[in-house]
Amino acid sequence: MTKALSIFDTTLRDGTQGEGISLSADDKLKIAKKLDDLGVHYIEGGIPGSNNKDIEFFKRIREYKLNAKITAFGSTRRKDSLAESDPNLARIIDSGVSVATLVGKSWDFHVHTALQTSLEENLAMIYDSIAFLKRKGLEVIFDAEHFFDGYKKNPEYALSVMRKAEEAGADWLVMCDTNGGTMPHEVHDIVTVLKGQATSARVGIHTHNDCELAVANAISAVRAGAEQIQGTMNGYGERCGNANLCSVIPNLQLKLGYQVLEDEQLQQLTNTARYISEIANVYMPVNQPYVGSAAFAHKGGIHVSAILRDSRTYEHIAPELVGNRQRVLVSELAGQSNILSKAQQMGIQIDPERESTREVIGRIKELEHEGYQFEGADASLELLLREANGDLKELFVFESFKMLVEKIAGRPVTSEAFVKLKIDGASIFTAAEGNGPVNALDNALRKALITYYPGLQDIHLSDYKVRVLDDKDATASKVRVLIESGSFGNSWSTVGVSGNVIEASWEALVDSLRYALIGQAKREDYVAISSDSRGLVNH
Amino acid sequence: MTKALSIFDTTLRDGTQGEGISLSADDKLKIAKKLDDLGVHYIEGGIPGSNNKDIEFFKRIREYKLNAKITAFGSTRRKDSLAESDPNLARIIDSGVSVATLVGKSWDFHVHTALQTSLEENLAMIYDSIAFLKRKGLEVIFDAEHFFDGYKKNPEYALSVMRKAEEAGADWLVMCDTNGGTMPHEVHDIVTVLKGQATSARVGIHTHNDCELAVANAISAVRAGAEQIQGTMNGYGERCGNANLCSVIPNLQLKLGYQVLEDEQLQQLTNTARYISEIANVYMPVNQPYVGSAAFAHKGGIHVSAILRDSRTYEHIAPELVGNRQRVLVSELAGQSNILSKAQQMGIQIDPERESTREVIGRIKELEHEGYQFEGADASLELLLREANGDLKELFVFESFKMLVEKIAGRPVTSEAFVKLKIDGASIFTAAEGNGPVNALDNALRKALITYYPGLQDIHLSDYKVRVLDDKDATASKVRVLIESGSFGNSWSTVGVSGNVIEASWEALVDSLRYALIGQAKREDYVAISSDSRGLVNH
Repeated sequence: MTKALSIFDTTLRDGTQGEGISLSADDKLKIAKKLDDLGVHYIEGGIPGSNNKDIEFFKRIREYKLNAKITAFGSTRRKDSLAESDPNLARIIDSGVSVATLVGKSWDFHVHTALQTSLEENLAMIYDSIAFLKRKGLEVIFDAEHFFDGYKKNPEYALSVMRKAEEAGADWLVMCDTNGGTMPHEVHDIVTVLKGQATSARVGIHTHNDCELAVANAISAVRAGAEQIQGTMNGYGERCGNANLCSVIPNLQLKLGYQVLEDEQLQQLTNTARYISEIANVYMPVNQPYVGSAAFAHKGGIHVSAILRDSRTYEHIAPELVGNRQRVLVSELAGQSNILSKAQQMGIQIDPERESTREVIGRIKELEHEGYQFEGADASLELLLREANGDLKELFVFESFKMLVEKIAGRPVTSEAFVKLKIDGASIFTAAEGNGPVNALDNALRKALITYYPGLQDIHLSDYKVRVLDDKDATASKVRVLIESGSFGNSWSTVGVSGNVIEASWEALVDSLRYALIGQAKREDYVAISSDSRGLVNH
Repeated sequence: MTKALSIFDTTLRDGTQGEGISLSADDKLKIAKKLDDLGVHYIEGGIPGSNNKDIEFFKRIREYKLNAKITAFGSTRRKDSLAESDPNLARIIDSGVSVATLVGKSWDFHVHTALQTSLEENLAMIYDSIAFLKRKGLEVIFDAEHFFDGYKKNPEYALSVMRKAEEAGADWLVMCDTNGGTMPHEVHDIVTVLKGQATSARVGIHTHNDCELAVANAISAVRAGAEQIQGTMNGYGERCGNANLCSVIPNLQLKLGYQVLEDEQLQQLTNTARYISEIANVYMPVNQPYVGSAAFAHKGGIHVSAILRDSRTYEHIAPELVGNRQRVLVSELAGQSNILSKAQQMGIQIDPERESTREVIGRIKELEHEGYQFEGADASLELLLREANGDLKELFVFESFKMLVEKIAGRPVTSEAFVKLKIDGASIFTAAEGNGPVNALDNALRKALITYYPGLQDIHLSDYKVRVLDDKDATASKVRVLIESGSFGNSWSTVGVSGNVIEASWEALVDSLRYALIGQAKREDYVAISSDSRGLVNH
């Protein structure tokens, strides 16, 4: 199929209505740039005038040369007033966009309950607002809120709303499943009815994920003739979120044969999704379809042995098509074959028959039992495997560390660390301050090592995660610390576990520096995050 | 529709193949009990003999009186051998279950590549294995692996596999979309073909979420005649997971009119999903459909004012039907109307016109800008609002704290805290040890307060979360600490933010104790977690 489909991204508007999502004007500009590189066709930037961030965004985005069209969101004019004097419509025009996305009511219940006006006045509000924006020269996308609920309750009224929008000159009639409660077969049937009625305007779809069906509903609408798909990156959005474009786009392109993006752009999908999750500072579930770190990760023993023969056995697409990659997970479930294939990937030759190999596999299982997780800490795993192989030298002999945090009323909190260790028989004792306890420890440790290992200068901590483990067999619970470190575009992850968060951090810190020094930070383990999205971590 | 549908839960088998999921035998028994209370019809417990945990599970589950049928998973017999002497089939029988779930190949490519045998031998493996288990008196569910991929490549062979399984006496023929790459309309078409061929056996569906369509595909199969749905709680499973039963079940019951569970059981859905996420120690996305904490959370200003008039305006079902509840989120996006309605929910009378109200709203926005998040810390928000209203007394005057962590090679790490404060003019200086720095601080603070406030005796910390915030406008990043505390079945959450994790923890700790003392830990804020699933947190 060569039929053109338009991707309409509303991450910057509907996406920010999700719990825990808040974007500054800078964040919005960075995301818009990234979305444009990906190749989406419309970028909804926000609601002009609703807050300072959106005002700043619409002002500054004009300086960018983007291929995507920027659109501003707003409601139809207020009841019993003129479109020409409506402040919200004026703000859309003032924002300088060439495309307006206008939301109007299509469910009679909402007209009565939320707008508290008559069905006729609602039609007039829609007609007047669209006609006004068209006279001002804008492309107008009409979002019919609650179209499916409205159609099910009062089909004639819902359709009359769309006819009215079309009469007023709307370029797009978009059916919104605002509450996310519609089933895919209903979407198909209702889109088919509307397509039979619409004459000149094209039809779009906007779905929500309240039934975990937003992606299915978007696809169902496309199969019934919709040509614009509204959604968000990673499915961010109010309540359960919007249709996840990271799944909609590859489904359309790789499964249903539409050419939505260039192939090279589609290969940027994983990178784009992760970048936006970093900017939005929202945890990305490892099992997110297509772009998650576990989307092509294999753990079951049968699966692992089969994919080592032929990837197609347990992968529905080649992960590279969306810029992701295959991973084999180490876990007690799969046992030794996974660990051996992981070692192979790392370029470590280990003999499954050797006693030391059996010992290290036993040790890994034991550590996993204690709460270590090597699935997210490849560098710590590699250190264990290399150690077993005898190709690691000891960096230093640890003697002690002390860490002091002090807070006196009215003064800033202070963090100091003291590290005592031996290198080549020489005693070293250092002290350092830091912005937080982990930063202080890191500083003191580097101070101790740097004369002997000057390469450590270029290593920085780029992420620090703490997870409380629920140790069900003991009275004390544990924490797992994951540290991500970087140097010259490489990155690697290490893990530490302890009942004490400081000790766990120390372990992960030491592993990070050991790994850096064996020079094993491989390019392929690096998922690019723009250098400006992460500062130095100081805890 | 009164047609019976069977829910087949494989959380304990396929679910544990997801990244980061590892369940002990105890965990599995707890989850099985909870699933049985929910009312699922089949519980797949694991693979007998694959590891000690599964052996222990099948042994101990026999002592439970459950309504659900327990089933054990295994493959068809090995090639070129006898079912009677197959060790895996023997282990299924030895496990003592009355139902076997047997997986076999239905894609010719897999027969050649993974099994490395002939198409005829694969049919014989299926026939022999099922017939053997039937002779032993077991109910047999035949899982046809990669059925959809197989059908698309070689429909005749895929169907001949199902016919062979039926001839051998299989009770159920289950079509598996093992790689998760099939579209809903394909599922519908292919299930329809199989239904036209199968005579006595009933048909089931097993889907994966690699295209974010597992739930849609399960529903599509049911609409085409499938009567058993296989899936997992919270969608856990290999790669992107399995069909999420927490969405499948309410969709079938509330949207498509099937009576899958009793209404009272459906009301346990949210509780069950959260309980299992706690046991599995896997983060539950706030926006998870139906059961997530944000599934019925409203943030957009227009939405909030409409749902205050009538919940049906922006909710597709009443949240109580699945045991969830409506929440209004406080955020800069929505502004003052959200904060006022939140205050109302908390029973705090604040006058929007008063100067102090405008001040506290400004203060909340400022704190959110600094990284505080009140969406997940209602207790800290309530303290701010009550403070503004003048109905809080000061607990103590803070003077200083000191926190020391020390580790000497070969000895356990130690944590000590020192707290200095004034209560009613009297100086108090305490010292305490702890299993970790936060626990030491908590102990020292309580030691200082307990004589004055004996009620603090019964408060315990039940969860502790640390989130690194990416402060893009400064060189130092910040951490946000969320603490959940509990007392007599109530629970409440507090927040602290600082560049220093110890200071952030202190803030959240102090808020937790302040909140406890105003006696505002309300019953309705408590989502029940069985008391044995969480120990005391010691960091």
